[in-house]
Amino acid sequence: MQDYYGRAMELHRRLRGKLKVVGKEPIRTIDDLSMLYTPGVAEPCRQIAKDKSLVYDLTMKHNTVAIVSDGTRVLGLGDIGPEAALPVMEGKALIMQQFAGIDAFPICLDTKDADEIVMVVKAIAPVFGAINLEDIETPKVFEIEKRLTESLTIPVFHDDQHGTAVVVLAGLINAMKLTKKTKSARIGIVGAGGAGYGITKLLCAYGFGNIVVFDSKGAIRMGRGGMDSHKEHIAKITNPDGFSGSLKDFAEADIIIAASQPGALPVETIKKMKKPNIVFALANPVPEISLEKARELNIDVFGTGRSDYPNQINNSLCFPGFLRALLDLRVTRITDNMKIAAAQGIAEAVSEIELKNGKIMPDPFDKSVPLNIRERVGKAIS
Amino acid sequence: MQDYYGRAMELHRRLRGKLKVVGKEPIRTIDDLSMLYTPGVAEPCRQIAKDKSLVYDLTMKHNTVAIVSDGTRVLGLGDIGPEAALPVMEGKALIMQQFAGIDAFPICLDTKDADEIVMVVKAIAPVFGAINLEDIETPKVFEIEKRLTESLTIPVFHDDQHGTAVVVLAGLINAMKLTKKTKSARIGIVGAGGAGYGITKLLCAYGFGNIVVFDSKGAIRMGRGGMDSHKEHIAKITNPDGFSGSLKDFAEADIIIAASQPGALPVETIKKMKKPNIVFALANPVPEISLEKARELNIDVFGTGRSDYPNQINNSLCFPGFLRALLDLRVTRITDNMKIAAAQGIAEAVSEIELKNGKIMPDPFDKSVPLNIRERVGKAIS
Repeated sequence: MQDYYGRAMELHRRLRGKLKVVGKEPIRTIDDLSMLYTPGVAEPCRQIAKDKSLVYDLTMKHNTVAIVSDGTRVLGLGDIGPEAALPVMEGKALIMQQFAGIDAFPICLDTKDADEIVMVVKAIAPVFGAINLEDIETPKVFEIEKRLTESLTIPVFHDDQHGTAVVVLAGLINAMKLTKKTKSARIGIVGAGGAGYGITKLLCAYGFGNIVVFDSKGAIRMGRGGMDSHKEHIAKITNPDGFSGSLKDFAEADIIIAASQPGALPVETIKKMKKPNIVFALANPVPEISLEKARELNIDVFGTGRSDYPNQINNSLCFPGFLRALLDLRVTRITDNMKIAAAQGIAEAVSEIELKNGKIMPDPFDKSVPLNIRERVGKAIS
Repeated sequence: MQDYYGRAMELHRRLRGKLKVVGKEPIRTIDDLSMLYTPGVAEPCRQIAKDKSLVYDLTMKHNTVAIVSDGTRVLGLGDIGPEAALPVMEGKALIMQQFAGIDAFPICLDTKDADEIVMVVKAIAPVFGAINLEDIETPKVFEIEKRLTESLTIPVFHDDQHGTAVVVLAGLINAMKLTKKTKSARIGIVGAGGAGYGITKLLCAYGFGNIVVFDSKGAIRMGRGGMDSHKEHIAKITNPDGFSGSLKDFAEADIIIAASQPGALPVETIKKMKKPNIVFALANPVPEISLEKARELNIDVFGTGRSDYPNQINNSLCFPGFLRALLDLRVTRITDNMKIAAAQGIAEAVSEIELKNGKIMPDPFDKSVPLNIRERVGKAIS
């Protein structure tokens, strides 16, 4: 791992930034200059001033995404600040360009205040066709997402929440085919942060009716008390039987999805699952259950966030294609239907033969994934 | 002009944005992905979290400029809003990339409030190595520039003010050689907006001691009353004899610099000038005095903002090289010495022979200009 991180440092030192902002057209002559800049540029300016919607036809807005972070919850590193978050946001922008032709730009904010973040994003919105919220701590980010979604006319995508939910649902769709499970499957979700909350909401919208979500205090249920508004919401839409035990007592589960940290998923819980069982352990880079342990426990379908394990459940399968769809279809608000369509698009990139061999997730470089997502989301809203 | 604007519209429709955000390195393999993104990216993040100054070595910050506008004073079009301002800001970014290899990104703000603009720019500063304020109305922009300069550790360049001042001084340096004028020359400056104020301050710093600035109410002087703080400042540093007449009464001027609007410079004033005379008429696209009129009045050295007239005094000669210098030299605050050095760098790009033929400004595509500026500014601060 030392050599690994050493190579990453060397690469970052050599590149000094992973992105370049380049012109689509070179300026070769005085005429080029006066067409692309003053005085010619005055005409598109005047036209947009008359009809604001022309900003989509005459500028970069239609293809541009802001990747917004305050650096408070970066990877597994926690609150490392906006400067230290920048390498991640650059990487994200790089992936958006390479996999979906999107012009994305990192906006790392030197403020942690929710009101200020909302104000800043609203202020910079004119240049962008979509906002991608990234690595902002919970529960603050839920409020920021809600307020921005209500006030902006461009879509606000929260990758940690929406993106993770979409790839998890994609994996589940295939895992269920493989194990012949139905929407009545008993599901345990471990972790109620951004990812856990997003997964819970999307699985409910998809039609799963038997979900119990666990945080560090045990099962989330109506009347437990001392919960913030997003946990109250989880209590309302899950746990129909009011299960009040600990995760260790949770028996007969068909599916366990952990979006927490190493050690958060007890071996006892897995041993009590109904066979065939499905376990997703999403903590990264160290999953809640290692591949070795999963094999030892004879888990039937196992997925993690790691690229060196089989069945990588990684947001990068979702966000390039999903943002491409949001931009192309000029979506103003993201709906559950769009997310479900995206999950189906990802799932169907795995062939029948691959699926039979236990593969539930497409490869990260599978070019059909963003195209499938784009097509499925298009159909879902038409 | 109709066909001209028609062509500009066609070009903008075809391009749909003049900029692209691209990766410096393609992602070809899983290893590339895990070096440029997670998990490898965690190491540069950790290093920057430990030592914030490493953000200059490991990210795009060292070469990235924000072009910030609220769209309140765009070209000659006035307050057209942030969306309509975007084509200009894209053009500006294009020029910065082509002439100086800078990665510039437009930030068009959906707020006109000075406090909010200051807050937003401070919040987004972590990603950028310099801020370029653009097309923001006066006097608000002076306050914004001052507050940002005081609170940020990256330089804040106000092109309408600093950029215009630098190119005007560059033109004057050469025009004075041609006409054998000295720093005791009597100078009239017409217009006390961003450009007029910036020019006045820089010419004073350069050592000119006999300047009178005119606004729509006549000569600015101590005790005139009813002036905002930047005009009070102008009164303090200019007009040593307390000239109180109108522009029409202003006689024996060696140099007139108009940064106002068509019609603002009376023919009488020019007729009363001392010969040989120097007149810069900077309103764009229609200068205060036309080339025909200038010839009829037998002006000795005449410059305008137009690319189809000789001696174009255009900011684009300054800002790419000057921002290049600010980034490379990691300047935190712009000083008059840096601006004077930049003006000298521009002026010296005109050869002796060209100068003898009446040419005082280099061509807009002269590649020596940004290099000269970079070198001169470097020497000025070393």
